[in-house]
Amino acid sequence: MEIKPYLEEQRRLVEEYLGRFMLPAEGDFSRLVEAMRYSLFVGGKRVRPILCLAASRAVIGDASLDGQVMPVACAMECIHTYSLIHDDLPAMDNDDLRRGRPTNHKVFGEAEAILAGDGLLTFAFELLSDPAFAATPAEARLRICHTIARAAGPLGMVGGQSLDMANEGKDIPYDLLRTIHRSKTGALITAAVETGGIAAGADATQLRALAGYGNAIGLAFQIVDDLLNVESTTEQLGKAAGSDAEAGKATYPALLGLEKSRTMAADAVAEAHRALESFGESAEPLRALATYIVERKR
Amino acid sequence: MEIKPYLEEQRRLVEEYLGRFMLPAEGDFSRLVEAMRYSLFVGGKRVRPILCLAASRAVIGDASLDGQVMPVACAMECIHTYSLIHDDLPAMDNDDLRRGRPTNHKVFGEAEAILAGDGLLTFAFELLSDPAFAATPAEARLRICHTIARAAGPLGMVGGQSLDMANEGKDIPYDLLRTIHRSKTGALITAAVETGGIAAGADATQLRALAGYGNAIGLAFQIVDDLLNVESTTEQLGKAAGSDAEAGKATYPALLGLEKSRTMAADAVAEAHRALESFGESAEPLRALATYIVERKR
Repeated sequence: MEIKPYLEEQRRLVEEYLGRFMLPAEGDFSRLVEAMRYSLFVGGKRVRPILCLAASRAVIGDASLDGQVMPVACAMECIHTYSLIHDDLPAMDNDDLRRGRPTNHKVFGEAEAILAGDGLLTFAFELLSDPAFAATPAEARLRICHTIARAAGPLGMVGGQSLDMANEGKDIPYDLLRTIHRSKTGALITAAVETGGIAAGADATQLRALAGYGNAIGLAFQIVDDLLNVESTTEQLGKAAGSDAEAGKATYPALLGLEKSRTMAADAVAEAHRALESFGESAEPLRALATYIVERKR
Repeated sequence: MEIKPYLEEQRRLVEEYLGRFMLPAEGDFSRLVEAMRYSLFVGGKRVRPILCLAASRAVIGDASLDGQVMPVACAMECIHTYSLIHDDLPAMDNDDLRRGRPTNHKVFGEAEAILAGDGLLTFAFELLSDPAFAATPAEARLRICHTIARAAGPLGMVGGQSLDMANEGKDIPYDLLRTIHRSKTGALITAAVETGGIAAGADATQLRALAGYGNAIGLAFQIVDDLLNVESTTEQLGKAAGSDAEAGKATYPALLGLEKSRTMAADAVAEAHRALESFGESAEPLRALATYIVERKR
């Protein structure tokens, strides 16, 4: 399948629903909501929501459940966006640019950026538990909440960010690098795929396959991100290139070298394809997405 | 009833469960978890969880559901604690002291404090959706999630904090002051009472009564907080006294004067008592709590 037009079409679909679900920047809290909207709508590939939708369609074979899966997909994007806002803060990575535009705190100030992140994280759970989306059984929705909270929480994304920062500029062993990335970026990507499956009523075997796929592409995604940071220009990336090396960050290329890192990313994609063996035609977009991850340029 | 021994006993009960639910500070993410635990266990009155438990007992008449309500009560305290950590940050209120001890960022640094807050907020939803607490019907648990997310989110606590900061040092009308406090502190207090009721299977009339009670004590609580900031010493408060005036914050005493503020707080407590008229003996702790709020010294 042609991945580029598919991604573009899916990105638009996700953004349409994000626009529908997200609060309007009006009324008493318009300034905060404006800051939330700024980062949510500044662009982005919408990889996590697209994965979530694709996983649900792989399970049921068509897009008929999209309306029910969209709150989950959009909650994923809210959480991803909050994590970017907080990661960019002066106290954290201190980045001025994100997706080619000034970072949230550069536009709204540090305090509002912290709150915009807090607001997006909380809003994600508001969306997941919204009574308007009651078509999905309550048990499945609770399980989705729990899967996402675990993946985003102290033993997942937040823990990974803390561990990453604590080890900046240090020589760390490969196992620790894996732990950092599995928690910091891998957990949420895996959760996107798993929760798409849960929303579509996947059985235990299907969920295991989807989780295996998610883990593999999560790893591939991170390695390629590290590689791009070394090999691209700032213009290509839309954020500061070479910033990892400058910050003394532990990365796959820094630890294993460029060649070995490329091989590992390719192996992970092969593993992702293997994980989906029991799925038929309906998982084609998930397969194409895995391949795209290693071939992307930003 | 004797409120002081009741509060002490309830505080201990809540802390016992907090200790049981909260992650141990060990393993890969021990530093982050340590930062989360520092602020969670540094002390505090545990007002929100105590209200949550008291509301559930008012509905069913005894403490037999405590085990099921505790995850909700403890999630409330996690969210309250996260909000204090973020509010204290240099970019926000820049406070060095909280509950008589150095604030989170003073001990763990700004980056870790931001993440500790993020971790506590996310962990709250992990707790609320934890499959271990499946005795409460899934529909009720989703409704609890939603009530808490709304109260803590951009149209609730986070929105209130943003609005509060945007109006620092400004002369604001009374309506705006009410909106700030209703969202910043009132919403979560009301949610504590409501979700205790939902967990106990309260009907619509009971929930309306509990929400009315929650709104009234939320207002009383904030007015008294403002009054204490003016009238107490730093030693009595365990945080910097007079800091509101110094920061040019809009407060009830600043806007209405001390006398009128005291009257308003007393009126709100009377309203809280009226809201509970349909409840019998079992709501006695809620009534005593309302009275205690205006009489407390810190």
